[in-house]
Amino acid sequence: MADQESVTELTTDKAPIKARGLEGVIALESELSSIDGDKGQLIYRGYDIHDLADHASFEEVVYLLRHGELPTQSELDDFSSHLRSERALPAPILNLLRETPADAHPMAVLRTAVSALALYDEEADTMEEAANHRKADRILAQIPTIIAAFDRLRKDKEPVAPLDHGSMAHNFLYMLNGEKPGAAAEDTFDVCLVLHADHGLNASTFTSRVIGSTLSDMYSAVSGSVGALKGRLHGGANQEVMRMLLDIDEKGADPTSYIRDRLDADERVMGFGHRVYNTMDPRAAILRTMVKELSEEAGDMKWYEYTTKIHETMTEETGIDPNVDFFSGPTYYQLGLDPDLFTTIFALSRTAGWTAHLLEQWADNRLIRPRAQYVGARDRTVAPIAER
Amino acid sequence: MADQESVTELTTDKAPIKARGLEGVIALESELSSIDGDKGQLIYRGYDIHDLADHASFEEVVYLLRHGELPTQSELDDFSSHLRSERALPAPILNLLRETPADAHPMAVLRTAVSALALYDEEADTMEEAANHRKADRILAQIPTIIAAFDRLRKDKEPVAPLDHGSMAHNFLYMLNGEKPGAAAEDTFDVCLVLHADHGLNASTFTSRVIGSTLSDMYSAVSGSVGALKGRLHGGANQEVMRMLLDIDEKGADPTSYIRDRLDADERVMGFGHRVYNTMDPRAAILRTMVKELSEEAGDMKWYEYTTKIHETMTEETGIDPNVDFFSGPTYYQLGLDPDLFTTIFALSRTAGWTAHLLEQWADNRLIRPRAQYVGARDRTVAPIAER
Repeated sequence: MADQESVTELTTDKAPIKARGLEGVIALESELSSIDGDKGQLIYRGYDIHDLADHASFEEVVYLLRHGELPTQSELDDFSSHLRSERALPAPILNLLRETPADAHPMAVLRTAVSALALYDEEADTMEEAANHRKADRILAQIPTIIAAFDRLRKDKEPVAPLDHGSMAHNFLYMLNGEKPGAAAEDTFDVCLVLHADHGLNASTFTSRVIGSTLSDMYSAVSGSVGALKGRLHGGANQEVMRMLLDIDEKGADPTSYIRDRLDADERVMGFGHRVYNTMDPRAAILRTMVKELSEEAGDMKWYEYTTKIHETMTEETGIDPNVDFFSGPTYYQLGLDPDLFTTIFALSRTAGWTAHLLEQWADNRLIRPRAQYVGARDRTVAPIAER
Repeated sequence: MADQESVTELTTDKAPIKARGLEGVIALESELSSIDGDKGQLIYRGYDIHDLADHASFEEVVYLLRHGELPTQSELDDFSSHLRSERALPAPILNLLRETPADAHPMAVLRTAVSALALYDEEADTMEEAANHRKADRILAQIPTIIAAFDRLRKDKEPVAPLDHGSMAHNFLYMLNGEKPGAAAEDTFDVCLVLHADHGLNASTFTSRVIGSTLSDMYSAVSGSVGALKGRLHGGANQEVMRMLLDIDEKGADPTSYIRDRLDADERVMGFGHRVYNTMDPRAAILRTMVKELSEEAGDMKWYEYTTKIHETMTEETGIDPNVDFFSGPTYYQLGLDPDLFTTIFALSRTAGWTAHLLEQWADNRLIRPRAQYVGARDRTVAPIAER
């Protein structure tokens, strides 16, 4: 990792450094999360992700990311209470969702609704730190309501008003299904939120920091991040994994030969490999256990068996490890979520990271602006249009 | 500039390079535009900005940025005709603007409306190159309609339907004011659009490329860029300049002593200095002439006189050159635009660059993902909440 390796500081008197895709370039310092790609370790603010998944709720993790310390009971109560008070959507946002075509991409809907929330927030352009904390609370509290309301509306059901009690995980599953979730489902979903809350300077988090670095507002940054996460190379992978598993199921195919056929045809198997981890993603290990437990609870082991066989086949054939998306897909599916909502759940969780990174960015802001190397034409003069 | 200096290529076996704000780092190659900060030169695809401002329309420049060549007459006719055919907004977008509070930030409205356009574009998630060109046309054609419609609605006027003829500059001023613009206003506005169409890897263009690099769609990228441009350190500066000029005018202040007072109080004078230019921004030089011509035409030289005095004072006191924002503010103002629309006009123009950069990004895509250096806590374990 960066902090254990030798790092060369680029000074302005040096020749510019060219690094396509910015691979190997450190753009900023952060105290939020760190990935050890060789050890397969992820920490938030110094706490191992396994420890947090076992012993802290999503609300505690959000507080930790933002403030640097886990909350005391009274800090947690205050924070949770403020989050709950911000769950309801302004009426015009609910109207926007009602008018939205049922076949719209849920991430495009979320991106639009988050952007539109700014129009109804009097503090949208107030850049004081306390106002930015309040906006972070508001966005985090309202995103679950947006996702659940749109999912119900597109299925011709009325949105369910948020609860004035319960955790974010509990309330989201309640608003989505119209009934209170069981303790196991709530706990599993809460752990999923913890696991996806932050992950270094991934593309969507970097997007928030780039947008924030112009001193634009939090809604601009978070809606931009939702747009980045929507991409197939970023947040869109877990639903691709689930589509593959559903395809295997529908065809009654043998997962091993299905994967071998894909590899033989040089097709990509989604959910394997990661630019940062050289070993198994620690989040994947935790989620694998969840897929197993959910399958046992449902009395149907097929999703666990499919993933196990695919994992084994990929290990044999390619040696590439599964990533977080490989197991989050079947986890969300077993919690009753439609595959095209998976990326919105990722967004819900990562909003914790995006907003914490924005607060960190603004505490010591510097415009993020690399350069392009111009490799185009030179010394041309405009010819009159008749002579072109 | 990058291509004339020696450039060191970062290879993966080297230690990571740390460059705060990515200053001095080349993130990608581009054939679109190049800035020579020492000579004060800006070129698009090899053509000097002075040459283009004098001899090419905005539509020709958009075509040039996208295709690498200036259009022939029949290519220009086809392109302009397609742009004109896409000017009208889907009814739900017009409804969204009707419902938007009149005091909403015009850039927040534009960001939301651009994001919402995706919900009504069947090709929104189609990534074929031809579909992306069509979407670029659509976004570029619809942004002026959004800006003009919202500006009229917030003033309790009905939106004016777009013309089925005329240039983008002509049609925009018509939709905004409800009457056809004079030739001088149209020409001036057209040159403003040409001058702002692209400018290397500025923060909003970089935002489009970062979002696009996840293989997310054009609406995600462009709405993200609108959000980035909204920031005070990026697109928001020209309206700050105008506010200063209006303040001088209202107070009947002497511009020279007004600026000296600001400098004495260590306050920033907006519209001066640029991270890339070490001499006068060539766009500023062109716009300064426009401020003069517009003042002469109006028979009132005050805006030209204020800017001239401020420019002289800043040269004497600081040696810092004015940038494009210093003269675009009074230019737009004299064209009858409200100061809080200035950044939306910048967005209108820069959409040409954003979309051309996206097409270039996708032609040879690579995820853009730098790293953060973790400087936070380590080796902590979660204490039970009662013991914190």
